[in-house]
Amino acid sequence: MDATVTLKDVAARAGVSVGTASRVLSGHSATSPAARERVRAAATELGYRVNARAQALRSARSHAVGLLVSDVRNPFFADIAHGAEQTALASSYVTLLANANEDTAQQDTYLDVFLTQRVDGIIIAPQGEGRGNLRALEEARVPLVFVDRVVDGFDVPSVTADNAQGVELAVAHLAEQGHTRIGYIGGPPSVSTGRARLSAFLEAVARHHLDDDPALITAGDFRRASGGTAAAKLLAHHRPPTALLAADSLMAVGALAEVRQRGLRIGEDLALVAFDDIEWFGELDPPLTVVAHDARALGATAMRLLLDVIDGGTAESVVLPMRLIPRRSSAARPHTAASHPSV
Amino acid sequence: MDATVTLKDVAARAGVSVGTASRVLSGHSATSPAARERVRAAATELGYRVNARAQALRSARSHAVGLLVSDVRNPFFADIAHGAEQTALASSYVTLLANANEDTAQQDTYLDVFLTQRVDGIIIAPQGEGRGNLRALEEARVPLVFVDRVVDGFDVPSVTADNAQGVELAVAHLAEQGHTRIGYIGGPPSVSTGRARLSAFLEAVARHHLDDDPALITAGDFRRASGGTAAAKLLAHHRPPTALLAADSLMAVGALAEVRQRGLRIGEDLALVAFDDIEWFGELDPPLTVVAHDARALGATAMRLLLDVIDGGTAESVVLPMRLIPRRSSAARPHTAASHPSV
Repeated sequence: MDATVTLKDVAARAGVSVGTASRVLSGHSATSPAARERVRAAATELGYRVNARAQALRSARSHAVGLLVSDVRNPFFADIAHGAEQTALASSYVTLLANANEDTAQQDTYLDVFLTQRVDGIIIAPQGEGRGNLRALEEARVPLVFVDRVVDGFDVPSVTADNAQGVELAVAHLAEQGHTRIGYIGGPPSVSTGRARLSAFLEAVARHHLDDDPALITAGDFRRASGGTAAAKLLAHHRPPTALLAADSLMAVGALAEVRQRGLRIGEDLALVAFDDIEWFGELDPPLTVVAHDARALGATAMRLLLDVIDGGTAESVVLPMRLIPRRSSAARPHTAASHPSV
Repeated sequence: MDATVTLKDVAARAGVSVGTASRVLSGHSATSPAARERVRAAATELGYRVNARAQALRSARSHAVGLLVSDVRNPFFADIAHGAEQTALASSYVTLLANANEDTAQQDTYLDVFLTQRVDGIIIAPQGEGRGNLRALEEARVPLVFVDRVVDGFDVPSVTADNAQGVELAVAHLAEQGHTRIGYIGGPPSVSTGRARLSAFLEAVARHHLDDDPALITAGDFRRASGGTAAAKLLAHHRPPTALLAADSLMAVGALAEVRQRGLRIGEDLALVAFDDIEWFGELDPPLTVVAHDARALGATAMRLLLDVIDGGTAESVVLPMRLIPRRSSAARPHTAASHPSV
């Protein structure tokens, strides 16, 4: 027996991935008969012996993973959860969901619960500055993947959307239609997507030579009500914006309702572009122009990375592209809005 | 020491609920200092001794409960989950969510996971006929509460909406406006709400002397696409309905999109009423008339019942009322639709 033979050697000899080799040797059901035969033959040939401690850990697997979403009522995170869960089930892993409710203390509570429940790994859309249990998890080397959001200073693989590209698509779209005063409804600075989208917005405003009036910048909390509050503030300005860009879907819906209550029409008096494409956004009044990422793909990719890490592999972070889906909400031109200066 | 002194006696002497007495005596943190003092004094006075086996069970508590929703992407279930979770946290219980994805096999998988994870109890929006793990759970006397849906033949406390009342409100509203041919987009007969709403619809049609043409009855699966398919089928009839009633929110959105694709206008050419009020339904084009139940209250009430059962109490089933919220989608009158007979 050669003690230096690794799982990687077995996988290479068998012509399968390290993950597959690991699953076969740990008796996992999600493997094909052909793969099982090849891996076992390779292990015998090479004299591979599973490390006793690794074996013990492996046999102690719960085959459950934890997924901590920021807000279970945000359809964007529900789509992430669905994508992650279906990918996990295809590898015989089950997903336990928990809801941080955009609250750092609640995030800590659930990370603790996941550890107590001995999940094999955790996917999290994190918030806060990474103190508390998030740091403890990293130090305990619990397999961990960030989805949608990241926390600076963590060496954790992540699957995120290309926020800078998304903001640029939105601003370029509005600039092309002649808008120079775009009101920005951003996310909270405590969340990486809140920070990344704001800095991308400031850069895009400079790049397109638009009005960089600081009064055009507001921040909400990724919840519906805060989008309405932000829109009210922007529209109360003596020179209101002619277009709005909302950094998430729920805030966009809040802004839409607020604008309507003021007797203005989105798509006619005021343009609106939102982050995140939710499946019913095309049925809103008016249909919303969005910069979209595929939430289901975010969830599925994050789960694939996590299963790789659980199987002892390494995972590279992935950035998924965004795309613009123009609909009627951004059809308003600036001169239309200029005819309503008293709003 | 009097072996016949029960927890109930201690609670009565201390002037607190059985649940509170149980929490104090099991060292649970979610108790007030005053309650702790009174319960401990009462236990000493009465010579109460915690049953050893009960004590063992109690100390083995995970303080985690499982919540199995039918479809995590349905905002109605996300609201139920949020209500349940906030109620649990207020009693120092955490909630592990899982998604059955409207699939009985996946439901069985997650019930099994919850047992493996040793949750203290389970809330489920069940589907299927109650074979498999659901029956096993009941037989193992795992604290169990049904929410939104029930399964016949189970002696399990439930929190449901008054489906018959909801359907009657919707049908009466449409009948008042002169509609006699109402197309029904129902849920699957394998789900109790699917069956209950269909039978309530048939009764309401008879009560209001409306057209009982069987061609007006269709069934979807509580998913968006099925609402579109059902609407297409209804509108293809040589005498199409002048109003639609959709038995859930996602099917209503599917029907809305299908009607629009056919060049018809909901609220003008055709009336639409939907079950479930989702927070953005008022922003749809047109705003949707709904029969609403308070999903958050359903979740919160179910969690209160479950915590009572976990604490050794009994729980009575609760039926929550529904109410009609009229909006523009039901403004269409039958004569308008009659001018489009060729659709």
